[in-house]
Amino acid sequence: MRTFIIKANKAKTSPDFRLSDLPGTSGRIDVLCRFLNAAFLLSHGFRRNVRVWLLLYGPPNPPKAIRFEGAKLRVRLNPDELSTAKLIMNILEAGERLKEPGKELEVYPGLYVSNRTFEDVIRLTLKNSALYYLHEDGKPIGKVSFKGNVAFVLGDHEGLSKEDEAFLEGIAEKVSVGKKSYLASHVVAYVNIFLDSLTLPP
Amino acid sequence: MRTFIIKANKAKTSPDFRLSDLPGTSGRIDVLCRFLNAAFLLSHGFRRNVRVWLLLYGPPNPPKAIRFEGAKLRVRLNPDELSTAKLIMNILEAGERLKEPGKELEVYPGLYVSNRTFEDVIRLTLKNSALYYLHEDGKPIGKVSFKGNVAFVLGDHEGLSKEDEAFLEGIAEKVSVGKKSYLASHVVAYVNIFLDSLTLPP
Repeated sequence: MRTFIIKANKAKTSPDFRLSDLPGTSGRIDVLCRFLNAAFLLSHGFRRNVRVWLLLYGPPNPPKAIRFEGAKLRVRLNPDELSTAKLIMNILEAGERLKEPGKELEVYPGLYVSNRTFEDVIRLTLKNSALYYLHEDGKPIGKVSFKGNVAFVLGDHEGLSKEDEAFLEGIAEKVSVGKKSYLASHVVAYVNIFLDSLTLPP
Repeated sequence: MRTFIIKANKAKTSPDFRLSDLPGTSGRIDVLCRFLNAAFLLSHGFRRNVRVWLLLYGPPNPPKAIRFEGAKLRVRLNPDELSTAKLIMNILEAGERLKEPGKELEVYPGLYVSNRTFEDVIRLTLKNSALYYLHEDGKPIGKVSFKGNVAFVLGDHEGLSKEDEAFLEGIAEKVSVGKKSYLASHVVAYVNIFLDSLTLPP
């Protein structure tokens, strides 16, 4: 089982953005659409062994945590950005009804929204997965021995904050796919293909 | 220098498609947008050592060959699909003026359109690059020795035709990034990051 977690510090937490201008109006929800594409999609196929957490921290009601559970998902995830952005819009709309901090709402089968924080999600993930922070200064991915469930944390186009990095210190191993700074979706595509090549792929 | 060539058998060759429904109206020009994103973009950077050929074979005027020349490109390539689709729309509009088969029109600096065929582009590419056909049954990429300029051919979501594969036989080495069938954009993201890791990256 593979978990991918992205913290999007500017991503809007209400559905009032325009699909015709995602980069300009949504706090870069387009980044999250490409992230989902990279995490789940195969050519004519879908990765059921993947979970994605999108952690949205933009205005007006941060945080919003959106969970995509590959094993249970019944909504069709299409490769294009717009259809995925519409889905996120619907989830954020449902999320506006959330009052209790601990509650998670199942918006569609396998698709959930909550007010969980980055720290909540990391703690939850640690219970059943080894945690890795994907960063260009990490240990080369080819030298890491992956066993059992694995979870990867990534920053958005602006990266994680110093506070978030301090929180991950000691609980997540820094792993790198290369010395350059790559787009989150490219890193996830790489990690998925890399993990597929292992003798016992998670 | 890295060249990526994709043949899109259904991609519209005129600009009459809708940006609000690329998958449904453009013959999957959204696939080409994600392909360009994977070929050129770094986090806050751009790969100048990349050339992309998009070979569009859909109605009404196939073929149209669009060439993106990283070293000369001055138009900003944004990561989102819509802005790239708009750019392709403009190029196809300019391409409607093309009459002579051999002529290539520079629409913007580093961005060209022509009526060149898949075979034309492959022959041209062979003059200065080693050619590889990315396919799941190929030789594992880790076992290939890449030297000098490299060029990779990919099919779109429907793959190359038997005729195209026959044409490549003997002139392109089949290379694989894994046994699964991956989306073209994921393969390109993987290949770029893989090539970056070589001692002498092309």
